Amino acid sequence: MHKKGKTVSFADPPVITGHAGVAGKKEGEGPLGEDFDAVFADTTMGQQSFELAESAMLRDAILRALSAAKAGRKKTDIRYLFSGDLLGQLIATSFGTGSLEIPLFGLYGACSTMALSLGVGAMLIDAGAKCCVAGTSSHFCSSERQFRFPLEYGGQRPPSAQWTVTGAGSAVLESKGEGVRIRAVHIGTITDYGITDAGNMGAAMAPAAARTIHDLMEDSATTPADYDQIVTGDLGAVGTKLLYQLMEQDWGIQLAGHHKDCGMMIYDLKSQDVNAGGSGCGCGGSVLCSHILKKMEQGALRKVLFVATGALMSPTSTKQGNSIPGVAHGVVLEV
Amino acid sequence: MHKKGKTVSFADPPVITGHAGVAGKKEGEGPLGEDFDAVFADTTMGQQSFELAESAMLRDAILRALSAAKAGRKKTDIRYLFSGDLLGQLIATSFGTGSLEIPLFGLYGACSTMALSLGVGAMLIDAGAKCCVAGTSSHFCSSERQFRFPLEYGGQRPPSAQWTVTGAGSAVLESKGEGVRIRAVHIGTITDYGITDAGNMGAAMAPAAARTIHDLMEDSATTPADYDQIVTGDLGAVGTKLLYQLMEQDWGIQLAGHHKDCGMMIYDLKSQDVNAGGSGCGCGGSVLCSHILKKMEQGALRKVLFVATGALMSPTSTKQGNSIPGVAHGVVLEV
Repeated sequence: MHKKGKTVSFADPPVITGHAGVAGKKEGEGPLGEDFDAVFADTTMGQQSFELAESAMLRDAILRALSAAKAGRKKTDIRYLFSGDLLGQLIATSFGTGSLEIPLFGLYGACSTMALSLGVGAMLIDAGAKCCVAGTSSHFCSSERQFRFPLEYGGQRPPSAQWTVTGAGSAVLESKGEGVRIRAVHIGTITDYGITDAGNMGAAMAPAAARTIHDLMEDSATTPADYDQIVTGDLGAVGTKLLYQLMEQDWGIQLAGHHKDCGMMIYDLKSQDVNAGGSGCGCGGSVLCSHILKKMEQGALRKVLFVATGALMSPTSTKQGNSIPGVAHGVVLEV
Repeated sequence: MHKKGKTVSFADPPVITGHAGVAGKKEGEGPLGEDFDAVFADTTMGQQSFELAESAMLRDAILRALSAAKAGRKKTDIRYLFSGDLLGQLIATSFGTGSLEIPLFGLYGACSTMALSLGVGAMLIDAGAKCCVAGTSSHFCSSERQFRFPLEYGGQRPPSAQWTVTGAGSAVLESKGEGVRIRAVHIGTITDYGITDAGNMGAAMAPAAARTIHDLMEDSATTPADYDQIVTGDLGAVGTKLLYQLMEQDWGIQLAGHHKDCGMMIYDLKSQDVNAGGSGCGCGGSVLCSHILKKMEQGALRKVLFVATGALMSPTSTKQGNSIPGVAHGVVLEV
């Protein structure tokens, strides 16, 4: 594990040997519908609550990732599970993964969780853990009623609002094997520009994304042109615009043309009525673990910087009028 | 990092070079009052909300641990911060640690967080991170209104209920230096015996504690007599009794005489009106990082197995009638 600034890189990079991204009906009807490993038309997953539906979707993604791993990994092969979600006290993870009987690191980084779980997983694989699983999930129905309004209320959404993705992603990490490799990891620092509008998560998260992308590129002496794609998790249209402005204004870096955002890729923003795009841990998680990793395995992308951003707010902190601290974690993926 | 079963041990054990446990007024009046590094008579910490008060207490514990570290560590010396709390979306951590500007691993393990943060911290120190900080907090007033009732309601508490500790603990981990060493880490697996009573957390957590203590002792070929003390985080009187029963019934292991519970040490159960004892991340966190580590440094204890247990419930999962999954993580401490 070699350290430069706040970025660690691996001489012998951990490998993603299996992965799966699953999603709900609306996501299945979007531009990436064909790439998901499963699309669930019934997003209740046959469960009694939306929270348990999210748990079932997360478990499904983890089990698919395990069987997709080249050797067909069993639950008992797995040293650690790194997982988290948006719900208070991570109940999607606790209720979704308990039956897997894998030692659990519960992680909270809001929508940044896919990068956080891959990051700590890669570091522990490098430290000697042979096989680990990273995962995350979100669900439109469990999130809306937790963070905003009861679904039945039918509240109007501002143009800057994003649509929480119903989906989950999971990746199996091993020290050896065939697959996309994790070359470097950058664990981010909380960045708070004082945004207080829970209907504008993109603005709350963009400064953290800018900081992590800049710092990681500075640490690794790279520029946007060194990556086939810089992919953010769920900044949406508003956050993406702010990210470009911040990168140019603070450091003179042009990101447009080198960057895509999972929140803008997963839906057709013109026809799917999602306002500024998708959000949620499941957005970056499902898109990375299906579309992006498949494109990398096919050779269409060879080096990707995946930066997932989280808005570290709670219903309580929002009601108390506090700002929304942002955080962004980055992983450099290579074939 | 040597692995046996689910336990990892370190040839060159990470060192706790600084630590601090801070607490509120009620905890200060308890049997361990003299040992805390600070006791806050005003548990609002001068903040506008109980949640921000908890944040301030966590930050205070981290800063005290840093200055207690032998070299007087500065924030900029710290590679990673591992921290979590009980509040939804970890707001005590997000709002308490943002100003420290340290790359953050947000961890959720409910009341098991002190052992989880020490565990992942020790593994990453072993992997090459030179200096990290682990921390956790809880606050009676922020927890009660999140998990149970508004404080003003004055709800009656059953005899099995525990009193959430107002307190925080933090430890600085380094690869070299003077101090208590972390010899081994055991990351636990979710264990769910179907308890649904949010007023009986001890019963929900005892099965996880029994499993982790048994598995760790089996992996390391040790018995209770090999430890000067086995210390659990916050099982309280009900959970402790169940732990002894489970250990004896399932494996014929006698724990009584070798075991103490931070939840029963922090208050005088006869006079302080806390029913079954203390609970919360801040219970195990503040007691370990003040009383226990001080006794180890004084030579009164030489080998301690610290097992912190978490009840992975949320207000939502409780209202939906779900069970309360438990988890327990263990760290072996030595001088």
